[in-house]
Amino acid sequence: MGILIKGGEVITATDRYTADVYAENGIISHIGTNLDAGEADKVIDATGKLVFPGGIDVHTHLDMPFMGTVTADDIESGHKAAAAGGTTCHIDFVIPERGGSLHEGLDTWFAKAEGKASIDYTYHMCITGWTEQVRKEMPEIVEKGITSFKCFLSYKGALDVNDAELLECYRTAKQAGAIVTLHCENADIVAHNQAQLLADGKTAPRYHYDSRPPEVEGEGTARAINIARMCGCPIYIVHLTCKESLVSVVRARKVGRPVWAETCIQYLVLDSDTCYASEDFEVSKYILSPPLRPAENKDILWDALLDNSLQVVSTDHAPFNYVGQKEMGRDNFCLIPNGLPNIEERLKLLYTHGVATGRMSANKFVEVSATNPAKIFGLWPKKGTIAVGSDADLYVWDPNETTTITQAEQLMATDYSCFDGWEVAGKVVATVRRGEVLYENGQFVGEVGSGQFVPRQPFNPFIYGTQSR
Amino acid sequence: MGILIKGGEVITATDRYTADVYAENGIISHIGTNLDAGEADKVIDATGKLVFPGGIDVHTHLDMPFMGTVTADDIESGHKAAAAGGTTCHIDFVIPERGGSLHEGLDTWFAKAEGKASIDYTYHMCITGWTEQVRKEMPEIVEKGITSFKCFLSYKGALDVNDAELLECYRTAKQAGAIVTLHCENADIVAHNQAQLLADGKTAPRYHYDSRPPEVEGEGTARAINIARMCGCPIYIVHLTCKESLVSVVRARKVGRPVWAETCIQYLVLDSDTCYASEDFEVSKYILSPPLRPAENKDILWDALLDNSLQVVSTDHAPFNYVGQKEMGRDNFCLIPNGLPNIEERLKLLYTHGVATGRMSANKFVEVSATNPAKIFGLWPKKGTIAVGSDADLYVWDPNETTTITQAEQLMATDYSCFDGWEVAGKVVATVRRGEVLYENGQFVGEVGSGQFVPRQPFNPFIYGTQSR
Amino acid sequence: MGILIKGGEVITATDRYTADVYAENGIISHIGTNLDAGEADKVIDATGKLVFPGGIDVHTHLDMPFMGTVTADDIESGHKAAAAGGTTCHIDFVIPERGGSLHEGLDTWFAKAEGKASIDYTYHMCITGWTEQVRKEMPEIVEKGITSFKCFLSYKGALDVNDAELLECYRTAKQAGAIVTLHCENADIVAHNQAQLLADGKTAPRYHYDSRPPEVEGEGTARAINIARMCGCPIYIVHLTCKESLVSVVRARKVGRPVWAETCIQYLVLDSDTCYASEDFEVSKYILSPPLRPAENKDILWDALLDNSLQVVSTDHAPFNYVGQKEMGRDNFCLIPNGLPNIEERLKLLYTHGVATGRMSANKFVEVSATNPAKIFGLWPKKGTIAVGSDADLYVWDPNETTTITQAEQLMATDYSCFDGWEVAGKVVATVRRGEVLYENGQFVGEVGSGQFVPRQPFNPFIYGTQSR
Amino acid sequence: MGILIKGGEVITATDRYTADVYAENGIISHIGTNLDAGEADKVIDATGKLVFPGGIDVHTHLDMPFMGTVTADDIESGHKAAAAGGTTCHIDFVIPERGGSLHEGLDTWFAKAEGKASIDYTYHMCITGWTEQVRKEMPEIVEKGITSFKCFLSYKGALDVNDAELLECYRTAKQAGAIVTLHCENADIVAHNQAQLLADGKTAPRYHYDSRPPEVEGEGTARAINIARMCGCPIYIVHLTCKESLVSVVRARKVGRPVWAETCIQYLVLDSDTCYASEDFEVSKYILSPPLRPAENKDILWDALLDNSLQVVSTDHAPFNYVGQKEMGRDNFCLIPNGLPNIEERLKLLYTHGVATGRMSANKFVEVSATNPAKIFGLWPKKGTIAVGSDADLYVWDPNETTTITQAEQLMATDYSCFDGWEVAGKVVATVRRGEVLYENGQFVGEVGSGQFVPRQPFNPFIYGTQSR
Repeated sequence: MGILIKGGEVITATDRYTADVYAENGIISHIGTNLDAGEADKVIDATGKLVFPGGIDVHTHLDMPFMGTVTADDIESGHKAAAAGGTTCHIDFVIPERGGSLHEGLDTWFAKAEGKASIDYTYHMCITGWTEQVRKEMPEIVEKGITSFKCFLSYKGALDVNDAELLECYRTAKQAGAIVTLHCENADIVAHNQAQLLADGKTAPRYHYDSRPPEVEGEGTARAINIARMCGCPIYIVHLTCKESLVSVVRARKVGRPVWAETCIQYLVLDSDTCYASEDFEVSKYILSPPLRPAENKDILWDALLDNSLQVVSTDHAPFNYVGQKEMGRDNFCLIPNGLPNIEERLKLLYTHGVATGRMSANKFVEVSATNPAKIFGLWPKKGTIAVGSDADLYVWDPNETTTITQAEQLMATDYSCFDGWEVAGKVVATVRRGEVLYENGQFVGEVGSGQFVPRQPFNPFIYGTQSR
Repeated sequence: MGILIKGGEVITATDRYTADVYAENGIISHIGTNLDAGEADKVIDATGKLVFPGGIDVHTHLDMPFMGTVTADDIESGHKAAAAGGTTCHIDFVIPERGGSLHEGLDTWFAKAEGKASIDYTYHMCITGWTEQVRKEMPEIVEKGITSFKCFLSYKGALDVNDAELLECYRTAKQAGAIVTLHCENADIVAHNQAQLLADGKTAPRYHYDSRPPEVEGEGTARAINIARMCGCPIYIVHLTCKESLVSVVRARKVGRPVWAETCIQYLVLDSDTCYASEDFEVSKYILSPPLRPAENKDILWDALLDNSLQVVSTDHAPFNYVGQKEMGRDNFCLIPNGLPNIEERLKLLYTHGVATGRMSANKFVEVSATNPAKIFGLWPKKGTIAVGSDADLYVWDPNETTTITQAEQLMATDYSCFDGWEVAGKVVATVRRGEVLYENGQFVGEVGSGQFVPRQPFNPFIYGTQSR
Repeated sequence: MGILIKGGEVITATDRYTADVYAENGIISHIGTNLDAGEADKVIDATGKLVFPGGIDVHTHLDMPFMGTVTADDIESGHKAAAAGGTTCHIDFVIPERGGSLHEGLDTWFAKAEGKASIDYTYHMCITGWTEQVRKEMPEIVEKGITSFKCFLSYKGALDVNDAELLECYRTAKQAGAIVTLHCENADIVAHNQAQLLADGKTAPRYHYDSRPPEVEGEGTARAINIARMCGCPIYIVHLTCKESLVSVVRARKVGRPVWAETCIQYLVLDSDTCYASEDFEVSKYILSPPLRPAENKDILWDALLDNSLQVVSTDHAPFNYVGQKEMGRDNFCLIPNGLPNIEERLKLLYTHGVATGRMSANKFVEVSATNPAKIFGLWPKKGTIAVGSDADLYVWDPNETTTITQAEQLMATDYSCFDGWEVAGKVVATVRRGEVLYENGQFVGEVGSGQFVPRQPFNPFIYGTQSR
Repeated sequence: MGILIKGGEVITATDRYTADVYAENGIISHIGTNLDAGEADKVIDATGKLVFPGGIDVHTHLDMPFMGTVTADDIESGHKAAAAGGTTCHIDFVIPERGGSLHEGLDTWFAKAEGKASIDYTYHMCITGWTEQVRKEMPEIVEKGITSFKCFLSYKGALDVNDAELLECYRTAKQAGAIVTLHCENADIVAHNQAQLLADGKTAPRYHYDSRPPEVEGEGTARAINIARMCGCPIYIVHLTCKESLVSVVRARKVGRPVWAETCIQYLVLDSDTCYASEDFEVSKYILSPPLRPAENKDILWDALLDNSLQVVSTDHAPFNYVGQKEMGRDNFCLIPNGLPNIEERLKLLYTHGVATGRMSANKFVEVSATNPAKIFGLWPKKGTIAVGSDADLYVWDPNETTTITQAEQLMATDYSCFDGWEVAGKVVATVRRGEVLYENGQFVGEVGSGQFVPRQPFNPFIYGTQSR
């Protein structure tokens, strides 16, 4: 039960060297030169290619009921697409009933994955309302290896918590050894803007942007951080998109507060200037929350990754078909299911627009796509690196080939792609998860159902802590 | 010709895992579980111990003529002491004659090392005066693998260059692919303060501090950075000691300028409040430039390492005996040879006061003591990490033992130690350089003369570049 | 109908000169040397004394129903006390019924002043809930010369508005030519903290502080500013007390946003370390919202006045008797009427602790106590300075006398003073309002009922605007 | 011996009111409504016009030998031009022989003014080299009412002092009660750049800019401030032109250091993009040091005046004819006399581009052109405002007329104007100095020789101090 990846250039967040990598029973056991194939039942020749730690996508939504419909990708299609893109582990979100039990929510999500998983998976637990039951269950959930929560400042009346509830949630999470992740848009103001725009007859998709301008996210981010300061809870801002938010993260980190933040790949390569220019309903394909931002933010976000102000690039993969789903909002942008499909392209786009352009080193690419996600969310050292003793999660990348993204060939279930026809400066040759090949020769070749739930370690400020200062 | 380090916990700037490390011909060839001793002529049992990349000390002065005398350590004693402390490579300074040839200077320094080296070594080339010959020789020196230079804003009339010469030096270095390191104290003002203090009869060692207050270093650092901005040359501030300097480094890095900086271990653990409190001549043992600083700076420097404002901890090892050498300045602090002995204790003190106190992760410890030094100065991936293909430079550290620093047992040649009697939260079990054991069982056991000169790569903003933003 | 103030040293925000000041019909008509007493029916000899513009207190609460009782001072006693302290004009707050008409609220407040006013007065209009009626009435209120509004982020369920309502209020105010003032404490969190403290049996007055820590004010201030940024409305933060809030004001002003802020005299001279040290109920005398802060904030606030980060010193005069009123909260700090009496001492304390200590120039003293208040709130040039054409509002201050504050001698109605026994580095010799002497020889000598409502100019960013950048 | 200015709108740094102003024996004695002409021998009708305090130009060079020639304006023509432009007092620079006596230098400058002055005048004393004689004479010079010094970081080998000398100069000035003004360009680097440009055949005027890029000024400004920090001396940066310098001033002021700075009118209205675009020798008309800057700096400087980061607008009037003088540098830009003529247009341009455009209030205009100059340099309250007891220095400005600047009509002696044909949004109706009319009806009508030397007060951090924080 072994696999040998021969002759590739192994890249971690720190190192870069040519070596063979051998794994037994899914765990990397040897890294060296001229390793004997030994008991390997599988050998991959990676000569002249790069061997990266498997991507970890800490922000996805598979088989999620949302806005009256369900995401186009379930666990099966989502995992296949992830594998095709080099991602071997993801963190999805359990969204319990508002007022309901966290445990029941978790069970519901476990059931969704049953028999369908091929990459490894775990969850953030959403707090969709504050009750004494929730307070009691939070530490129990941490015991189960779910060591991060999520609160929404947005989605008023549906998922949001008020400021005092947020503070209580922070306190409870901190005591339980968890980190809290946050969707930071001001719920009151978004709801108000929506009503006003609709009242003004502004129903086209592009007005979604006007309902959630950068200042709305900026306010939410400042508030999430300012309230965390009241109890010292470690927090993580999800899908940060713009300088209006970034400024608060930078200031908090400068004085040593335990604040981390991600951006998503779409905010690095798409922008509102281009995608929201028309009144056309096609714009709905690019509708997500927060929306895409003016182009100037792209450089700002890239720079923030380079100077460690942002630590992670995720996807917020939330796929809905154009036909039948996005179309639900034809007469009212508020009814367009929010989100876009991209779990398959995160690493391809980040490599192409980051590493291949010379903007980002290959080490940094690994850091923000695998190592930091693993360290922040308690998956390291099991996941997030290539090292003896770690899971053999990796993908072989050929930087010498050029490929093209097409909707036709994607494994994601959606009827469109935001990146159709975009060139990629490389190719996923093979994706390996715990020593098993999931993807090779352009095909998903893994076993559906082989993906495992990964319980995570409590938040450990010390392991990752040096980066918080 | 192999060596096997068995069962230790290997720590790099990113990773931490238990494995065996095997090296052949001085190069790490295998890392894995249950490695066969194979052709190993040496096996070290590291079970329950830590295996760190060999320390790289980028700021040392061995066999250096200075202020009318010569450092107490020559290459032989200095290297033995370094090895005893876990350091396997250092960067010394070639100090050519003012107005003389850089090549001749280099040859002089090569000669000093001849037959005496046991750890590996390389040099920064000091620019001690600006001539057309120097301008012509700089790229030639880079060709020889000396890819960093040093300029002094201090030591007026002896080693300093004026601002225009500094700018020319920057331009020439940048074009040649080198980085410039800088001693940042305002020469004019130091000289002036010295004269005034002596005129006032203030001759005791402690007045050395008054001749070089923090503002003098702050001014120099600001100037070095402001002039570098005129041509974009990558620079590295040596022995940064205080907030007055740090503020300029932080600002420059914030806007993406190629500026790096080190502090030295003594500034992290000693302070002027304690060491310069008396008029006694014993104070001379602690006289160096810049001097120790008020205690509040210690936390500031530790924090700056943690938030990546500072990237390296070095020593500025410049050892002089108390008897006969420090004493030269009995009647005049200006005549006290500047410097203190510490090449042996850098890693011990950094581990004890950083890692063991919980302030710094073991990964960060490796980053600032080995990996960053190697990456910034073109030694990586040959040096600075534990990875297949890298030199087998490492040391085995037992974090479960407590040892004590004593002058009597040190391998440094000086007749005193600044840390005599200080406890160390661990012990160097063995030090290995290119697969050869240099130190073990409390003894230097290496071969004198086996250390090699290491030509370095040109400055590569891309390899290390992501950390500059 | 003339009054002549002879030989004093006249001080404005810019100037300082010795001259006679003559006013006819309440308006300053001549300033000069050796002015003829002419038709003056009153001459005050100010030789050797200072002549300051009458103080303007932009934050007071007289005859205000609050927390189940009514402030101890009505218009009559409050105005007498103000005059005794050199204040000749104030801005009180109209607090309409939640959900009611602003006009009706204004009429209620007009009625309170009827026949009782002796200094001049005007109002901020509180927005205690958001309705379409309020939106419609806001511009009408501005037409009546009430050109500033107030919103509460605090007092949950009683006076607060939510974030979207706040944004609407900003938009409406801006369009109407008004400025919005804000009480910035997070309502949700204060309410939550109060409940928790009481549940924990922490009922003593000192726990009031714990329910409203600085971070709660910091969050509110950041939010008020971040939401204002969405529409560009000019805003004014009331009773800023601490660095946690100040930082947001400083940042906003640095990039040119129309943000101003006041602190109150008590935050400059009292602190929580001293006043809240005991479990005793006497602490209730110092209970106000926001509470007093740790002592380190005092210097920070003084400095912020000096560097123009704060522009005004007001009182938030909200007087309640200890017996019968403060006592309402004997068993529950939440029931202690918030506020303290100080309308009489603002200028005395600011002069004593600012000017007399050499911390603040006499010009700056005038700027923050009279000129800035008048310019920000549309009272200038009628009020706020000593110049030809301005109302003859002024007071004569003898800096050579030392006086003592005592509860016994105060004109405020409360049964206690926070400053009983404090020394004052000067003495109010006489207070003149529109040419009429209100206070002289230690007695109120004015005519009750002679004070007038002052309609104010719309917010004029240009008049005061240069100071916003 | 009286003069009455009737019915104008008087504007000070704080106030704005309509009144008559009466002066006796050169001193304002009455300000009021309907003043009797009394003993006035002169009445000016200012109805519908503005009455400003006379401009104070704190940076001029009249009758100055420089670069092998002498400025085109001597005291007589310079003063006439100043009066025509509303300026009634200026501070020129005494430039003693390098190594010579300050007293002798002062006498030389006194002699230049003998019988020629019409506006009032005083001097900054340049320190053109550091000697024990200079140290001894500095306090003596302060005794004579010359309470400010000037040091050059620029003009290497001619006027510059080294860093230690600068520190000594600071210490001596501080002790004597003076402020030090600084020309902040790095002498070494300018000299070096000049040599290199000439060696490259770049001799045209436009290359002057390349010899003094913004970074050169930025470095000098940082250094001047950093060295002042060593002893706490109050300093004043002259002719600040760009963001590279401004950033250091802003930082220093933010932490309360006694640092002030001026810009000059030309940096607010001219830029290098336009003026240095050609290789033509006409460019020489705009050559000064520091040079004009890229256009983006103009807004930055305007904003810095508004937010009080800069406190003064002066001229650095240094007039040389194009024919015969500027032409000295036809073959070598280094030989072009540095400077441009503008003493006549400062107030016209500042009003037109500041006040008339709505960017700056009329009060702020007064503050930066008259009041701040007077307060910083010890002329207030004698000069710099319109108040009883102050010198009757003022000018009547008609904001309803539009006039045009032409070289033909200017009173400056130069054969060109940088502003020929520019429109002015107003007109100087009359200029009055100590009650005497110097300029009226488009003619200089004053008495040559009537201008007086004004001894100044020592630097008073308290009077102006509140603005330093």
